[in-house]
Amino acid sequence: MTPEEFRRAAHATVDWVADYLAHVEEYPVLSRAEPGEIRKGLPAVPPSEGEPWDRILADLDQSILPGVTHWQSPDFFAFFPANSSGPAVLGDLVSSGLGVQGMLWATSPAATELETHVLDWLVEMCGLPDQFSSSSRGGGVIQDSASSATLVALLAARERATHGQANRHGAGGDLTVYTSVHGHSSIDKAVRIAGLGIEQLRHIPAGPDHAMDPDQLEATIIADRAEGLTPAAVVATIGTTSSTAIDPVADIAEVCRAHGVWLHVDAAYAGTAAVLPEMRWILAGLDGADSYVFNPHKWMLTNFDCSAFYVADRAELIETLSILPEYLKNQATASGAVFDYRDWQVSLGRRFRALKLWFVIRSFGVEGVQAHVRKGIELAQELAGWVEADPDFEIASPHPFGLVCFRHTGGDAVNQRILETVNASGEAYITHTVLDDAYTLRAAIGAPSTERRHVTDLWDRIRAAAQ
Amino acid sequence: MTPEEFRRAAHATVDWVADYLAHVEEYPVLSRAEPGEIRKGLPAVPPSEGEPWDRILADLDQSILPGVTHWQSPDFFAFFPANSSGPAVLGDLVSSGLGVQGMLWATSPAATELETHVLDWLVEMCGLPDQFSSSSRGGGVIQDSASSATLVALLAARERATHGQANRHGAGGDLTVYTSVHGHSSIDKAVRIAGLGIEQLRHIPAGPDHAMDPDQLEATIIADRAEGLTPAAVVATIGTTSSTAIDPVADIAEVCRAHGVWLHVDAAYAGTAAVLPEMRWILAGLDGADSYVFNPHKWMLTNFDCSAFYVADRAELIETLSILPEYLKNQATASGAVFDYRDWQVSLGRRFRALKLWFVIRSFGVEGVQAHVRKGIELAQELAGWVEADPDFEIASPHPFGLVCFRHTGGDAVNQRILETVNASGEAYITHTVLDDAYTLRAAIGAPSTERRHVTDLWDRIRAAAQ
Repeated sequence: MTPEEFRRAAHATVDWVADYLAHVEEYPVLSRAEPGEIRKGLPAVPPSEGEPWDRILADLDQSILPGVTHWQSPDFFAFFPANSSGPAVLGDLVSSGLGVQGMLWATSPAATELETHVLDWLVEMCGLPDQFSSSSRGGGVIQDSASSATLVALLAARERATHGQANRHGAGGDLTVYTSVHGHSSIDKAVRIAGLGIEQLRHIPAGPDHAMDPDQLEATIIADRAEGLTPAAVVATIGTTSSTAIDPVADIAEVCRAHGVWLHVDAAYAGTAAVLPEMRWILAGLDGADSYVFNPHKWMLTNFDCSAFYVADRAELIETLSILPEYLKNQATASGAVFDYRDWQVSLGRRFRALKLWFVIRSFGVEGVQAHVRKGIELAQELAGWVEADPDFEIASPHPFGLVCFRHTGGDAVNQRILETVNASGEAYITHTVLDDAYTLRAAIGAPSTERRHVTDLWDRIRAAAQ
Repeated sequence: MTPEEFRRAAHATVDWVADYLAHVEEYPVLSRAEPGEIRKGLPAVPPSEGEPWDRILADLDQSILPGVTHWQSPDFFAFFPANSSGPAVLGDLVSSGLGVQGMLWATSPAATELETHVLDWLVEMCGLPDQFSSSSRGGGVIQDSASSATLVALLAARERATHGQANRHGAGGDLTVYTSVHGHSSIDKAVRIAGLGIEQLRHIPAGPDHAMDPDQLEATIIADRAEGLTPAAVVATIGTTSSTAIDPVADIAEVCRAHGVWLHVDAAYAGTAAVLPEMRWILAGLDGADSYVFNPHKWMLTNFDCSAFYVADRAELIETLSILPEYLKNQATASGAVFDYRDWQVSLGRRFRALKLWFVIRSFGVEGVQAHVRKGIELAQELAGWVEADPDFEIASPHPFGLVCFRHTGGDAVNQRILETVNASGEAYITHTVLDDAYTLRAAIGAPSTERRHVTDLWDRIRAAAQ
């Protein structure tokens, strides 16, 4: 495909995407495909000869879309939002077009420097503590996901707790990690991957607001140390996945400081809310954290993957992950004057992901991002008000962000049927969790295209399903 | 940005990318930016209000391009190629536009099923052994990089060797891993991440062709077992990063079978060559492997990130990585009838990356992909011939693929100056390695835009620099 052939195919594809976005509301939100159905529509063998672009584009409609669940639909209320936006899509496009590798500063200096720059912008935009700015001893890096961010945080914590001996001799089984019973499954996964052993992960009980109890955390750390174990890390959550509960980070940070334990704070979804001055209280105590992650790819209008990960001491992270073979040696690295982001992550290779964040912040402006987040919170508060006002329903947890957890008072089976009915309609998609041992409905508001009418429609559908 | 505003901005951006690709040859290949120079050109604070799209695009030229090293230039001969192509760029564009999450089959069935499908296509296209097809007990998955693939392979090996006890109680320090002295740095990194301890990684000596010596491998395994250690995994390489050496996989597989050790084969760069029937000999013995990775994002015209990872027994991988919290439970997963690819990788979230591979295979056809790879190999053989014919230069290793390793006979300092002179010219970019204790130049041919004239120019420049 020559640049001119690319130009023609790309203009056609852009129109396909723009048409898709203009009509995304008309598709059934949740795909109705049965297992194996999409594959059945695809030829068993690859074509020997190349096919024309229009045929390939046509197959997108015919073979692929029926198997797509429409995460960008204004009626998508499942899981958490996975924000996309025009500027972010185009950031990915330019990144793909340039096709550069940002593994080292030297392999494309702009990829590294723009990344450091926009992550410093986020420090300012969200009022993050100074220790996470690149002008301090810390700094930020884009990870593919909060899962990876939490993994590398735990690895750095592991090395701090063992003075680098785990990297050298193995992780052993005497390091312990702490999170709340509502900590994300990626913490469990990271503990396993890092060779710490899942039996070494303590799930600290939560209070009635589903937030971690810091007294129980401290008691558990003390008990573990008395048993000869080495507490290595605590993962606190600002905005749990189940219910957006907020662990008391300030109290937890004090415990971590007293016991010399690495504090990692996971604000994957909720961290974006700190772009609003009136929400910045959620970060109280974050200046006591060693590392922090939030996902612009959830609620900050930036396509997956774009997880903003910060450390207070970048040297600890780099020492944990750096290996320098001959074929990667270069003057800039040797000088120590640059960041080589491969040393901040699991993988060697990396795309130029900073472009999409740069495009988003510039195209929306800080005020545009704020308006988007504020709208999601306001709509969620409205929905929560309607739930509260309905005697057949109850709110299941605090809801300071865009997620509302609630349930019908008729019990698990009724709620499960409500969920199935709503999702089968194709008109909306919600998911569930279990809170206080009860099946609980989750409605997460925050797709850029969601307006008030979509939320009122959702509530009407839920009430109709309950009948 | 409404869909119509997106349409306008996207058409402008497509033209920017097409113009860039049309003129990529005119830029100095290696960026001349000094550390900090790109950041200096960027405003210190993010804009409050949104900016118009044409201003943002203009800044790409002004602020970003001077800091870009042009990996898609026909004069890029550094590292390994990082192939981009029109169809792949557009696959990424559609993926971004759809903005779906493929973490579970249920969250977008087409994302999972197309991925399984195109990875089965690759099994056929490359003549991979049947155990890696999804119709067997194995199957393929797209990872972001070979680093991640090797990590999850080692994790599965770790669990096999410990009967799941490492996941439960920690990795301990008695598991051992083996690779050649030329194994990729990602193996060292994965061993550290997995909590095995870098002291447990054995770098087996290589013969004069820089390939692993299987007798020394077996002797080391036997010695380790005699010491009470547990050999867990061998990582063999088809096409090392330094010199594209090919470890004797058939012999190594026999050793692994005899000693019950997981065999992972890393063909990150060279695996693409198997698309050519005349190159399929490189896969000899691969039917004895437990896992395999190669990177379409290196040489198969598919933009990063797209690493094709295969396992012979998917159940082992899934058991290693699966954790199922309440909020991800769903009927399709419970039925066991579907793949949930989050259980095949480190992260939970995942993009719809199969689209770009599907677009590439359909747009080029198998024959188009073959023609691209064949051209790279042929040009490399020509270059190698010129090196051999020049009494001032010598070939440093076998060169069956697109990489030629060679050196001037004048010693390390001369070769280092040749490299610096060529790279400073802006007309080409080459990198180096050390082979047999000597500084060695590497020229990797395989960018889609590289024609014969670019290689002859490179050789002229190298000879001129040597004067």
